[in-house]
Amino acid sequence: MTTDAQILTALRSAQGGGVSGSELSQQLDISRAAIWARIEELRSFGYDIEASPHRGYRLVSAPDHLHADDLLSRLGKTRTIGRDIRVFQETTSTNDVIEKLARDGVKEGAVVFAESQSKGRGRLGRKWMSPPRKGLWFSLLLRPAMRPSAATQLTIAAAAALSRAIRLHTGLKPEIKWPNDIVIRGKKVAGILTELSAELDKVKYVILGIGVDVNLSAGEFPHEFRKLATSLKIETGQSIDRAELAAEILRELDRDYARICAGQFTAVADEWESQCATLGHNVVIRLGDRQIQGRAESLDVDGALLLRTLHGHLETIIGGDVTLEK
Amino acid sequence: MTTDAQILTALRSAQGGGVSGSELSQQLDISRAAIWARIEELRSFGYDIEASPHRGYRLVSAPDHLHADDLLSRLGKTRTIGRDIRVFQETTSTNDVIEKLARDGVKEGAVVFAESQSKGRGRLGRKWMSPPRKGLWFSLLLRPAMRPSAATQLTIAAAAALSRAIRLHTGLKPEIKWPNDIVIRGKKVAGILTELSAELDKVKYVILGIGVDVNLSAGEFPHEFRKLATSLKIETGQSIDRAELAAEILRELDRDYARICAGQFTAVADEWESQCATLGHNVVIRLGDRQIQGRAESLDVDGALLLRTLHGHLETIIGGDVTLEK
Repeated sequence: MTTDAQILTALRSAQGGGVSGSELSQQLDISRAAIWARIEELRSFGYDIEASPHRGYRLVSAPDHLHADDLLSRLGKTRTIGRDIRVFQETTSTNDVIEKLARDGVKEGAVVFAESQSKGRGRLGRKWMSPPRKGLWFSLLLRPAMRPSAATQLTIAAAAALSRAIRLHTGLKPEIKWPNDIVIRGKKVAGILTELSAELDKVKYVILGIGVDVNLSAGEFPHEFRKLATSLKIETGQSIDRAELAAEILRELDRDYARICAGQFTAVADEWESQCATLGHNVVIRLGDRQIQGRAESLDVDGALLLRTLHGHLETIIGGDVTLEK
Repeated sequence: MTTDAQILTALRSAQGGGVSGSELSQQLDISRAAIWARIEELRSFGYDIEASPHRGYRLVSAPDHLHADDLLSRLGKTRTIGRDIRVFQETTSTNDVIEKLARDGVKEGAVVFAESQSKGRGRLGRKWMSPPRKGLWFSLLLRPAMRPSAATQLTIAAAAALSRAIRLHTGLKPEIKWPNDIVIRGKKVAGILTELSAELDKVKYVILGIGVDVNLSAGEFPHEFRKLATSLKIETGQSIDRAELAAEILRELDRDYARICAGQFTAVADEWESQCATLGHNVVIRLGDRQIQGRAESLDVDGALLLRTLHGHLETIIGGDVTLEK
């Protein structure tokens, strides 16, 4: 952890109380002058840090900017995810950035956030709108020991974790639309794009790209999306602390990734199923030119959707666009 | 096609006869002086081109160097594969080079050869020995519209094409060892490494890395491989024209890739099965820590191996190391 992250962690653990310069100096094993210089630097980033002779330093508020040290300090200890966090002000797509890191051998668990993306993308090359500081646009790198066909497990785990984190942080009741969308009252609020690099029988790495519409107001969505998409701000009626939500999501992702690695996909899938808006319903699935109708029954061991078709066959569905039948 | 490739094509189509400077000048629509300059350049690369006032230019021999223009001139018309050929004297791994091209948006069918690789690799990160000018070490880029799980079809097609090209060019009778090796008298002579980049339900691109031990003599194999590996030179007792073999392989790959794209995997699989040394035999398959014994029965629709285990179950096998039981 960097010095800034350690300072922020210490201030946060005081929970609104103060921490004296000498305490910080001891804890971090650097001079009080150096602490002072770092505090000044944090202030210049927008952190409101009070200093008083009696109470020491106190963190009053943090800016609505994502900042790697701040995210690390909020995150606390995780097993894999978020040990390495990088924040870009703007990039083409966080998936592209992390793919470069993956090829350079960066360890799994690395996370790349961007305050905005010029070429954010959804599934099948679709555009993903990512306006500056209105959402969480990030990607994480995983190197699971699994077959490519099992990678759907990771999308399932990410959806369960994302939905849980949103519920914990906002009190909203998000639902999962198979395979990769989080919806609230039928409108999309977050999505997951899973990309992988593999040999035939072995994943080299998986990239989970996650986009959450956090603080967009209705007018900030393009007209054609207003009936289909929403944001956490619209649903709760208030602005959401993006950094705190980001930390919550990373913690939940870390927890579910650990479960997948430990072979506990069934537990993850059970939780996923309890939040799923797709299972048990009659759906139409478009797969390229093909269209299949049926009842979404359950997930298979790899996380694929088992669909009971009108002819009574059970089909295994990996991707596609799902529409609920009225 | 470049001017050099056009000149070589014209000289080759004369089949040992000559082509006059004025014919070449007309065909290529450049001056006789320019033709002369290109011929001089080709000679400097090692092409033995005779020039006589009566017979014109005549290609006597080509050097044992891979040269993109030469490969293009030998290849003739293909549908997809080899329209874009690049030759490197040395590189880390041709798969790495073509992966960069893939991300830069290069069209499918591009082929990268290297005269030697410093970090050639086989399946599961294993090292692949690629000494200078002793073999064919190359990679090709495909962008098929398929699910990731169907990518095994491409390995199957490549193995069938590679085996056929070796048979056509050398008269040897190679066999295919599932999933990715070509063997002669039980010894490995060529291998295929399939790598893919994908979303969960859609391949973005597939890279086929192919290595063929062409002109290595027995002493050039590391001691520990001598019982396991062989070369076309060892098996035929003579040096093989690498460029001609390369063109043959690319033509056959082009043919089988077209069949896969046209949905004719069954035809490819039938041909593959007739050359397969694995099907119909009792085998042991090592998958990581796991080991499965059974009888290799056939391929499934995606190109996976169907194994009848000792307990009578039919298992679908995607990768692993296969050993024939005695």
